[in-house]
Amino acid sequence: MTANQQVLLDNRPTGEAVAGNFKLVNSETPVLQNGQVLVRHHFLSLDPYMRGRMNDSKSYTAPQSLGEVMGGGTAGEVVESRSPKYQPGDKVVGMGGWQQYSVVSADAPGALRKVDTTHVPLSHYLGAVGMPGVTAWYGLLKIIEPKAGETVVVSAATGAVGSAFGALAKARGCRTVGIAGGPDKCRYAVDELGFDACIDYKLYKDAAALSKALQQACPDGIDGYFENVGGMVLDAVLLRMNAFGRVALCGMIAGYDGQPLPLNHPGLILTNRLKLQGFIVSEHMSIWPEALTELGTLVGSGKLRPRESVAQGLQAAPEAFLGLLKGKNFGKQLVKLI
Amino acid sequence: MTANQQVLLDNRPTGEAVAGNFKLVNSETPVLQNGQVLVRHHFLSLDPYMRGRMNDSKSYTAPQSLGEVMGGGTAGEVVESRSPKYQPGDKVVGMGGWQQYSVVSADAPGALRKVDTTHVPLSHYLGAVGMPGVTAWYGLLKIIEPKAGETVVVSAATGAVGSAFGALAKARGCRTVGIAGGPDKCRYAVDELGFDACIDYKLYKDAAALSKALQQACPDGIDGYFENVGGMVLDAVLLRMNAFGRVALCGMIAGYDGQPLPLNHPGLILTNRLKLQGFIVSEHMSIWPEALTELGTLVGSGKLRPRESVAQGLQAAPEAFLGLLKGKNFGKQLVKLI
Repeated sequence: MTANQQVLLDNRPTGEAVAGNFKLVNSETPVLQNGQVLVRHHFLSLDPYMRGRMNDSKSYTAPQSLGEVMGGGTAGEVVESRSPKYQPGDKVVGMGGWQQYSVVSADAPGALRKVDTTHVPLSHYLGAVGMPGVTAWYGLLKIIEPKAGETVVVSAATGAVGSAFGALAKARGCRTVGIAGGPDKCRYAVDELGFDACIDYKLYKDAAALSKALQQACPDGIDGYFENVGGMVLDAVLLRMNAFGRVALCGMIAGYDGQPLPLNHPGLILTNRLKLQGFIVSEHMSIWPEALTELGTLVGSGKLRPRESVAQGLQAAPEAFLGLLKGKNFGKQLVKLI
Repeated sequence: MTANQQVLLDNRPTGEAVAGNFKLVNSETPVLQNGQVLVRHHFLSLDPYMRGRMNDSKSYTAPQSLGEVMGGGTAGEVVESRSPKYQPGDKVVGMGGWQQYSVVSADAPGALRKVDTTHVPLSHYLGAVGMPGVTAWYGLLKIIEPKAGETVVVSAATGAVGSAFGALAKARGCRTVGIAGGPDKCRYAVDELGFDACIDYKLYKDAAALSKALQQACPDGIDGYFENVGGMVLDAVLLRMNAFGRVALCGMIAGYDGQPLPLNHPGLILTNRLKLQGFIVSEHMSIWPEALTELGTLVGSGKLRPRESVAQGLQAAPEAFLGLLKGKNFGKQLVKLI
């Protein structure tokens, strides 16, 4: 038994999520059973999808239960093992949740994955070489299916998904254009992440104005779009899509608080013969090994240099998460737990 | 030279299309050149896409030019030929436009197609065994890709596209549910076209109410949807789509007059991992032979008994077309020209 801190979902948001929805508690880890391992979490991943799970409504995942530890991806180290598969000291990635330690059945499929930190820092396995990176890979390769020379756009371009998307698309010879909030993020997208251009959506008051900026950044139109935010940004991009354009819908963070978020010109889907497709990367596990191999190589070789926002200590997780929903993070949002 | 009557686009609609947008004129056919044939049109096809071409705006086809003969599909008979490929008496389908006769270069690819009227009446080559039927075939087979036992829905169910869609989906073991306007059309959809159920959208005041009716007609949810109308109907159907549902967007007639027509819950594309795809059947000519073969067999064997609304005489074309846009037709809208 080890002293453990946990963050529970205490009550559900009405509208915007607030710190009072969460509760920090002290507990102890249960005694290990045969086949189980005890993992000390070094990093907790904060991701926009968690906001959806806080609602008690039909979505692609079951709602987060009240009074239980918030779910979430974790990277850490095995500190005790009653499974022959793991030794203390092994670096592992799993879904340990918002807590310092987790007890995991080593045989449960997909519960834990051993990772090699020789060339890739442990934290990146929660970002560029983890779920967000694979998300970018799936949307680009399986939905957008880009050809060299095409123009692809991604919103939330400096986030964990967006930055991986940029590197993956660049490697395929695409013109890559990001959309992000604020001059610092846009400069970073171009200077460090290798985007050909990046548009600061905060400079534009509506979809029509943003669409004009997109026209300048994408003189040949837009062939593929990876959507993380929804709302005005999606409307603006659709106005610039070329015939036979493809849109991968992975997040619509702008609508997570429940406000209406219509798509204003669905007729464009018809007139431009577009494909819009939603997906969830956890439903496509078969592509993970191939995607992780490419992403690990991009990071290991320095072609993808993902940025991280790191909050310190579990008690900082709720505020860091609420900041993420407002775009206050700069790069992959993590909580360091050691 | 043969006396000819033609309907020209005289001026463009501002908002709703009106009869005054068209102009009936008398002319003469030009003298035949080598390689040309003179076709007497027996039937003119009226189709919703023509409304889009009346606007001077970017769309998937070039706008209809002012002062020129309205474009449109025609079925008729070769009456004079200076091409070895055609003999007088040959029954042919082409794009002769809103006029009694057309002069066609026999060698132009896709300009004319000889048809066999032994088992299929000539007029059906403009409907079930023509462009509308192939449209249904493409959307069902190439976008919806239905499996036996799945539920598929089509709007404008008794129209030329909808009735073909129903027969094609039934032949693949699907539960087929139509949406149409009025009790007569709904009864016809079930009794004559073989739909498992048909919903009269006019009975429901908003998308939520229509969505409840869909829930009853589709107890297992909706796996595929073929969209001809847009607006409230599309909103209602999206609320009932199952995970991994597919939507083929072929028409959004509700928005053709330029009024705003937002899609109110695009977040459903993400949460239900839907695919929405727009298409235009004329961009997929390679599938036409296979589609026409199946459609001809369905009609020839009596498994698809398409209904027609036939207006008499070229001068009746504008009013018949405006009625089509309001759903006043019952089945494929044609104009009989002989």
